[in-house]
Amino acid sequence: MPNPIEFYFDFSSPYGYIASEKIDALASKYGREVTWRPFLLGVAFKATGGVPLPFVPLKGPYSARDIARSTKFYGVEYRLPSVFPISSVSPCRAFYWLDAKDPMRAKALARALYRAYFVDNIDISGVEGTIAVSPKFGLSTDELRAALADQAIKDRTRTEVDKAIARGAFGSPYIIVDGEPFWGSDRLDQIDRWLQTGGW
Amino acid sequence: MPNPIEFYFDFSSPYGYIASEKIDALASKYGREVTWRPFLLGVAFKATGGVPLPFVPLKGPYSARDIARSTKFYGVEYRLPSVFPISSVSPCRAFYWLDAKDPMRAKALARALYRAYFVDNIDISGVEGTIAVSPKFGLSTDELRAALADQAIKDRTRTEVDKAIARGAFGSPYIIVDGEPFWGSDRLDQIDRWLQTGGW
Repeated sequence: MPNPIEFYFDFSSPYGYIASEKIDALASKYGREVTWRPFLLGVAFKATGGVPLPFVPLKGPYSARDIARSTKFYGVEYRLPSVFPISSVSPCRAFYWLDAKDPMRAKALARALYRAYFVDNIDISGVEGTIAVSPKFGLSTDELRAALADQAIKDRTRTEVDKAIARGAFGSPYIIVDGEPFWGSDRLDQIDRWLQTGGW
Repeated sequence: MPNPIEFYFDFSSPYGYIASEKIDALASKYGREVTWRPFLLGVAFKATGGVPLPFVPLKGPYSARDIARSTKFYGVEYRLPSVFPISSVSPCRAFYWLDAKDPMRAKALARALYRAYFVDNIDISGVEGTIAVSPKFGLSTDELRAALADQAIKDRTRTEVDKAIARGAFGSPYIIVDGEPFWGSDRLDQIDRWLQTGGW
């Protein structure tokens, strides 16, 4: 069995959202699995001196336009959330709680969280916003609320975020194929050819 | 006649180099002209707080890998120059000197300068490095040397750099099609579709 593709993303990242809608279908064309690993860009930015896009002069206004254009280019439903960017600790914890029990269902939860934020304009940054997705997704609100307060879940999330950054993830999405890192949803075309050819 | 496509780039930018090898052929598929406008990323970085890629933790090592991989992906000859990045004031001035007399020949000079730097490993940052390209390109070394010292050429270069940044150019390449800005050689696919469809 080939190694799974590693997919690192931040729940507040529109480019991560684009990749989340595409990466499994792309991987399955080549019989490959994808391991989803949400992380926190804010922690990576402490290492790189990075600044969230909306706060960068010139680049900020450009990126708003580029995100709207790119989502249409990739055929992904999108609207700019009222609150953007957000802290994504809560959705991250929800993911890792479910991932420990059922990785496939955790992926589906991640997709539901992304769509809640980038399609339905639900602010998923806090516990209540994250929990709001649970009934739609068939999870118990009480169970998810308890999980988000669980120290063991907090610890696992922190460990996973540190591991992502140790793997080099400085932006979202950050996708590793057989040791080769690709940053950005605009590298999906290179990933496709890499999977097809084995690299160059 | 439709507006020409505006192509802003820095002579020290590998992604600008990739775009320089592709943009005219892409435009001509749709009967469009391209106006080349070199500028200085260093000046833009003063506005944005940007840092040259090699000096950014995590992103720097990634970008070296991405540049080597992306040039191959686009079929563009490339090797990492011994000195990278460089100040590109001299090649910029050489361009604007020739552009005032013969824009088509100025484009050819720009291509020669880019290839000198990214294929033949000639450091084009100083006057001597820029002049080194001239015999190969059929220009008089003495004439080019005189132009690079000409205050009027320095002034025009400064004006053009300021105009580029006023147009929003914060990175290289920065390409404007009918008012729509595209940043990065990885947006050539979107530019192609934009030209084909008239935008979305």
